[in-house]
Amino acid sequence: MLKIAVDAMGGDNAPVEIVKGALAALDEREDFMLVFTGDENLVKAELAKYKYDASRVDVRHCTEVVTNDDIPTSAVRRKRDSSLVVGLKMLKEDENVGGFVSAGPTGALFAGGVMYLGRIKGVMRPALCPGVPNVRVGQTLLCDCGANAECKPAYLAQFGLMASAYARILGVEEPRVGLLSNGTEEHKGDPLHQEAHALLKEMKGVRFVGNVEGRDLMYGDVDVVVSDGFSGNIALKSAEGCGKAVSALLNQEFKKSLFSKISYLFVRGKINKLKSVLDYARIGGTLFLGLKSIVVKSHGASKARSITPSVVQAVDAYRGNLIQKIEEAFAAAGVSGSEGE
Amino acid sequence: MLKIAVDAMGGDNAPVEIVKGALAALDEREDFMLVFTGDENLVKAELAKYKYDASRVDVRHCTEVVTNDDIPTSAVRRKRDSSLVVGLKMLKEDENVGGFVSAGPTGALFAGGVMYLGRIKGVMRPALCPGVPNVRVGQTLLCDCGANAECKPAYLAQFGLMASAYARILGVEEPRVGLLSNGTEEHKGDPLHQEAHALLKEMKGVRFVGNVEGRDLMYGDVDVVVSDGFSGNIALKSAEGCGKAVSALLNQEFKKSLFSKISYLFVRGKINKLKSVLDYARIGGTLFLGLKSIVVKSHGASKARSITPSVVQAVDAYRGNLIQKIEEAFAAAGVSGSEGE
Repeated sequence: MLKIAVDAMGGDNAPVEIVKGALAALDEREDFMLVFTGDENLVKAELAKYKYDASRVDVRHCTEVVTNDDIPTSAVRRKRDSSLVVGLKMLKEDENVGGFVSAGPTGALFAGGVMYLGRIKGVMRPALCPGVPNVRVGQTLLCDCGANAECKPAYLAQFGLMASAYARILGVEEPRVGLLSNGTEEHKGDPLHQEAHALLKEMKGVRFVGNVEGRDLMYGDVDVVVSDGFSGNIALKSAEGCGKAVSALLNQEFKKSLFSKISYLFVRGKINKLKSVLDYARIGGTLFLGLKSIVVKSHGASKARSITPSVVQAVDAYRGNLIQKIEEAFAAAGVSGSEGE
Repeated sequence: MLKIAVDAMGGDNAPVEIVKGALAALDEREDFMLVFTGDENLVKAELAKYKYDASRVDVRHCTEVVTNDDIPTSAVRRKRDSSLVVGLKMLKEDENVGGFVSAGPTGALFAGGVMYLGRIKGVMRPALCPGVPNVRVGQTLLCDCGANAECKPAYLAQFGLMASAYARILGVEEPRVGLLSNGTEEHKGDPLHQEAHALLKEMKGVRFVGNVEGRDLMYGDVDVVVSDGFSGNIALKSAEGCGKAVSALLNQEFKKSLFSKISYLFVRGKINKLKSVLDYARIGGTLFLGLKSIVVKSHGASKARSITPSVVQAVDAYRGNLIQKIEEAFAAAGVSGSEGE
């Protein structure tokens, strides 16, 4: 049976919310099981709170935790018995383990992923690919959004290829790909983005529609937004920040007086619908593209309700043959290249 | 009397909304007059619709218009009798003209500003500095947001200095300045941002609080966000796009049924308050920092209600001695440098 490893100790709300959220994923997808990595006593104490099919849950005891205070690259080397490293090693060594979900530190998870799993042949730089909620109540994939602050044009072209493969697994037959720039005209941007534009235009397997702007992230007219990791991160956090600001303002407004509270009853459904459109948690975590296995990073502040879709995401990516699809896309596009630069 | 030149022909809604909005600014500030640049017949036909103090309004006839289809640099050279170029030349030649407001094409206005007005001594690169509405119902200045897609570290340090001078005129005594990056830690970002971080830390006259992220644009914990023009543009449009998406979703939800429409009556005040917090128009236009005179770019789609605060912004920046304040800040910080790189 397919196994999904879950880092029970990573994130602000571990293990309580991690265990709760992962167990809920068992109801969402069939024929897979969870293997929690972490302190056995703590995990089992959480598991004891719920009813679940015991044949679908296992625990792999380990003693260490990688935290935000650790230096990513050295932590994944040193803390070999951490829930994060043990999960990655299971993914590498046990062929039944198809994916790993962690709400631990992004930098360490990424560094560990590259170190223990390695890159798909031809991939110059693995990348972070979150889904941004758009107004069509779908998601726009943003790749890269932070792994590579410095990029070369060829990296960006590869991000387009990898994210397109993932978008197809999510059900978009011919994903439209835009390049994030400071204007829609072809000549916009710095030389990096001008050259990336030219490469994306020629890239087989990428349906490139040209430059897009920050606002296009949420409009849903493209399925994939390609970006260098620096500005992708800024775009994501700017949009996310605005969404959070809106939710906070709405809560504040409707808590001011008794009349406000009563009027809220009449519009609660609409307000909640708006919040759910803006809600990143409904989409799951951030998939790492370009590694030889499936790794999903869930937000460090994840509650159960965002762990559940992250686990589902790992199951679906595995069953959609994400790794093979990326390999095929690279072969078809004639992208082999060196493993390094 | 102080004169503010207004490009009556620039933008999607010229001259109708431009004339209407500028006239409304006469009620907001005393002792200044408007000089509209543009087709005299068209402008006078609009003016005829309103009651206003005729001693405070003048028209400077000209025959051409710079449009979005023009190539910026050549248009400002060739179209010497355009409302945009005539406005800039008045600003240069008539010492009573203290500012110029235009909703015309940004690129042309910027190129024309550099060409006809020149840069303040020591300024390497003029920059665009819009205010982003934040949840404290104030504004966060973002500099640069698009004039310079390619930057050097020293440009970014200067953006911090110039925007701080402007924030003081807006009433912030000790503006807090953040550097837009892909993480708050000092080591985050590419070499450009790492070096800019080091320069800002040492820059006299800048109260540097470190790196900030995209979400900080709308939280209001800093008064100035320094950015390269490429990622600043992306941050602005990502936040703006989210705000527009929210407004569109709210409108859509409350128009669905009669019950929705009735329930809307109870919450209209709150919804409008939310929209007004997110509203860029309340803040005015984008000030160009680093030119020898005050130029305010109003959004191309500006309606009267965003032209009014743009004119007010020009009056206030002039009366706050913006240009001298920037010169003084540069002198105090020991930034003289060459005029070029």
